[in-house]
Amino acid sequence: MASPGSGFWSFASEDGSGDPENPGTARAWCQVAQRFTGGIGNKLCALLYGDAEKPAESGGIQPPRAASRKATCACNQKPCSCPKAGINYAFLHATDLLPACDGERPTLAFLQDVMDILLQYVVKSFDRSTKVIDFHYPNELLQEYNWGLADQPQNLEEILMHCQTTLKYAIKTGHPRYFNQLSTGLDMVGLAADWLTSTANTNMFTYEIAPVFVLLEYVTLKKMREIIGWPGGSGDGIFSPGGAISNMYAMLIARFKMFPEVKEKGMAAVPRLIAFTSEHSHFSLKKGAAALGIGTDSVILIKCDERGKMIPSDLERRILEAKQKGFVPFLVSATAGTTVYGAFDPLLAVADICKKYKVWMHVDAAWGGGLLMSRKHKWKLSGVERANSVTWNPHKMMGVPLQCSALLVREEGLMQSCNQMQASYLFQQDKHYDLSYDTGDKALQCGRHVDVFKLWLMWRAKGTTGFEAHIDKCLELAEYLYNTIKNREGYEMVFDGKPQHTNVCFWYVPPSLRVLDNNEERMSRLSKVAPVIKARMMEYGTTMVSYQPLGDKVNFFRVVISNPAATHQDIDFLIEEIERLGQDL
Amino acid sequence: MASPGSGFWSFASEDGSGDPENPGTARAWCQVAQRFTGGIGNKLCALLYGDAEKPAESGGIQPPRAASRKATCACNQKPCSCPKAGINYAFLHATDLLPACDGERPTLAFLQDVMDILLQYVVKSFDRSTKVIDFHYPNELLQEYNWGLADQPQNLEEILMHCQTTLKYAIKTGHPRYFNQLSTGLDMVGLAADWLTSTANTNMFTYEIAPVFVLLEYVTLKKMREIIGWPGGSGDGIFSPGGAISNMYAMLIARFKMFPEVKEKGMAAVPRLIAFTSEHSHFSLKKGAAALGIGTDSVILIKCDERGKMIPSDLERRILEAKQKGFVPFLVSATAGTTVYGAFDPLLAVADICKKYKVWMHVDAAWGGGLLMSRKHKWKLSGVERANSVTWNPHKMMGVPLQCSALLVREEGLMQSCNQMQASYLFQQDKHYDLSYDTGDKALQCGRHVDVFKLWLMWRAKGTTGFEAHIDKCLELAEYLYNTIKNREGYEMVFDGKPQHTNVCFWYVPPSLRVLDNNEERMSRLSKVAPVIKARMMEYGTTMVSYQPLGDKVNFFRVVISNPAATHQDIDFLIEEIERLGQDL
Repeated sequence: MASPGSGFWSFASEDGSGDPENPGTARAWCQVAQRFTGGIGNKLCALLYGDAEKPAESGGIQPPRAASRKATCACNQKPCSCPKAGINYAFLHATDLLPACDGERPTLAFLQDVMDILLQYVVKSFDRSTKVIDFHYPNELLQEYNWGLADQPQNLEEILMHCQTTLKYAIKTGHPRYFNQLSTGLDMVGLAADWLTSTANTNMFTYEIAPVFVLLEYVTLKKMREIIGWPGGSGDGIFSPGGAISNMYAMLIARFKMFPEVKEKGMAAVPRLIAFTSEHSHFSLKKGAAALGIGTDSVILIKCDERGKMIPSDLERRILEAKQKGFVPFLVSATAGTTVYGAFDPLLAVADICKKYKVWMHVDAAWGGGLLMSRKHKWKLSGVERANSVTWNPHKMMGVPLQCSALLVREEGLMQSCNQMQASYLFQQDKHYDLSYDTGDKALQCGRHVDVFKLWLMWRAKGTTGFEAHIDKCLELAEYLYNTIKNREGYEMVFDGKPQHTNVCFWYVPPSLRVLDNNEERMSRLSKVAPVIKARMMEYGTTMVSYQPLGDKVNFFRVVISNPAATHQDIDFLIEEIERLGQDL
Repeated sequence: MASPGSGFWSFASEDGSGDPENPGTARAWCQVAQRFTGGIGNKLCALLYGDAEKPAESGGIQPPRAASRKATCACNQKPCSCPKAGINYAFLHATDLLPACDGERPTLAFLQDVMDILLQYVVKSFDRSTKVIDFHYPNELLQEYNWGLADQPQNLEEILMHCQTTLKYAIKTGHPRYFNQLSTGLDMVGLAADWLTSTANTNMFTYEIAPVFVLLEYVTLKKMREIIGWPGGSGDGIFSPGGAISNMYAMLIARFKMFPEVKEKGMAAVPRLIAFTSEHSHFSLKKGAAALGIGTDSVILIKCDERGKMIPSDLERRILEAKQKGFVPFLVSATAGTTVYGAFDPLLAVADICKKYKVWMHVDAAWGGGLLMSRKHKWKLSGVERANSVTWNPHKMMGVPLQCSALLVREEGLMQSCNQMQASYLFQQDKHYDLSYDTGDKALQCGRHVDVFKLWLMWRAKGTTGFEAHIDKCLELAEYLYNTIKNREGYEMVFDGKPQHTNVCFWYVPPSLRVLDNNEERMSRLSKVAPVIKARMMEYGTTMVSYQPLGDKVNFFRVVISNPAATHQDIDFLIEEIERLGQDL
């Protein structure tokens, strides 16, 4: 396998002869180059020799490459013959790369070639003529390629091939027609920032080893709290590994606030605690309750209206019921942007109830939090400023690369008291700098990945107004989809009215079912439509969209739009594709 | 700000005139180039014009760049004048990048320039003449640069500048003289893999959206279980966000195994559970117990011998004691490689006790797990094959970029039963592929970052033997350090004997203290030595090493070696630097 982009400078041979005015060889060209000023000659020679030794390869997008070969050759010979300029990955191994002696040149060449593979993938991701996914069944994929791990090393040619193969089978999450998850899209500045994060390869636990990232976390969380509406952006927070963990943090802190002794004594020392969340809320609330020793039975699911919003009167009723049983309501988790319907719970009404019964109010705005960036849509989260804690995932509606999830806490210091263990080997108290920047002890994690930089850099690049424009556009697209299908033959909306978020939920009813009465048989057949269309979508690789049942509603499609690459035409394509793939069912 | 590497082709002007045989301008050079075959002429013209329009900049390492400018210009004019080849980032914003119409060229140029900044940093990371850290106090750093977030976007020139500034203040965790944490070094293949992971930008919850990564997790975890010694590599596991979370998983699963009703009923339904771990173990055990509602009081710390190893007889005594009180011992967490001493608990003896009392045996091999890759050193983990679960962080001793932590579980299916909530919108039961590959529901997280690819690709590139060589070398270096200082004037070892891992713990005793009697005053003064030396190290930026007190031992240095870039000379340098910075104390 030759690396991508080889053959860019296509010389037939490098036999060392040739007319300088008609160079057909690297050496002839090099002789011409040596006559010019400014050091260009040597550099060009290195370039020529480096490339001439690579076999030509055709096909595919050919992004720039081989730059590394030019620059790293420091040869001053005239005429230059630069034997070191030839890179043959088949003879190189990881041990030839930095920190190996003389490792700089192969390292730069190798990393540049990896980068070229990535740039190809980036360009393809946005190309509507490419597939969203080249789908293979697990057993096929396991057999199609040797993925096994062995005792002996492989050469760098093989390593580059693995990179290409991995991306060949990857799903293009940035593709304009990928509507499958709440996190879609591929932001170029966010991507650059994530590459930088990988390169910096550090850990968030102390200022000592992540000075800039710790400060940026401070700056960014404060800004997010200002946007939530907490006075002066005061409070606390952390970037955690995903919304589920952020929600678990909220539960943990709420419990600690009410019963700090739980930290030492455990749940045995406290009364039975009850958490409340809507029946449409994310499953992580139950997962968290199971993990924290609270138990899933102690998570009461509050009824929702037909639009998926929590019904405040039911919340109050269930709180009273729990209190009557002698249990202690300790947390209400309202959802701002439910996973399936994109519904916003009525936060003001929930806040009133939480205040009345002195219960911690958490808002799971993992999905809906992005709307706070939009002057047009932020009213949907009115009341979030009254929350005690908020989960907000910039990796969803704000298009930040995975992962980037924030938990914001209104009361400062609580996270620290709740989680700190004061390990003396990490959080030495006699360091020479301000220890308030050693934020690691407020986390459940010890080592913590740097998740802030991509958000921070995107924010600098887009400005708040840029996020706003992105969000407004996605909501407009969702409205367009809704308007297009609401009266279209063969579609039934799962709930009435314009979606509040970008979730558009509907059934596609194939012609053969349209004539049936609305009875059990029809429901049973309808429930099989979405899975088949989805399977076909994946096999064709043309688009991807999610489906699920919910409550008594059989499998329906849920389109979500968070991808900045999507256009009206992509929405049209999606509709046509659903019809094309489903009309015979 | 000009991007790095500009001025690589240094033309004085591009006035369009000039002798082709003595070109001083882009156009003149271009005219020469047009005479040659193979399409080289146009490509070279694009290169020349693109670069000629950039202001020259000097200083610093100049890695390859501008490749994007060449390739993306498709101009066929002769003579070529390629106006589009000029990229001026001051006029470009994030909105000009993909998916923008015509965004491909600026995107490739921008990402390439980011990459050049990263490549500069990579090269500098291994350069002993550069600082490990350019240290600034938090308030200084906050004031030195405008880190704030605003409504309006910044142009791409500013974004590139932020990347450079961020790296300027970053700590070079790959620097050969960075000994500060258990995770050091910067592996080039691992880095490339992490860049690829960022570019693929997906999530581990289902096969559907991460087919290759899910398979690679399966392959890699199985291999790790084989190495642990479980028959046929059977069992279960997950990559989690760090060792603390992996340990928390172990505790969670152990509890569930013994009392599955805890999932629904919470801790109220079960007797008081007791976990046991050594007094030298990682604080995450207590953190986990606090979070899981077990309580830190229920984590019993077992005495260690003078080398930091758990004393089995004390373990057995404390288990009996707990049982006598009517409590239920549910977990013993033995440590393979303690954080400070690098000690290995006697796993075989612990296994016997766990078997005798039917207690879940967890091995926290976050730090020591890497030694399983070494035929010479793996005996230190004898007995690990008898564990029920093992934490093993490849991001520590195996040099995988952060983060990469695995929890391995001996019994298959337990994680799934313990954590699953069967969210129908994610884990649809009527998908068209084998659902056993939808592994997301066994995690505590919902979205989960792809942490496996960098380990997998490094494994392919190094082979098991490559990891072995790395680990053997680091242990040899630690032994060299130990041998060098054990009898050297001014050093006292914290514990006797050759270190079992790469942790070398010692006091440096400045000349003024050497004459003092071993009394309280001396201890008090000695306790201040390491913090001052460390502060000076950071201010000079020459090297970094950790210190801490432990038990009744005042602040001592703990050198750990996991960095493949470190050499004997770097160890010598470290010793000399400690003496240089500490001799006046």
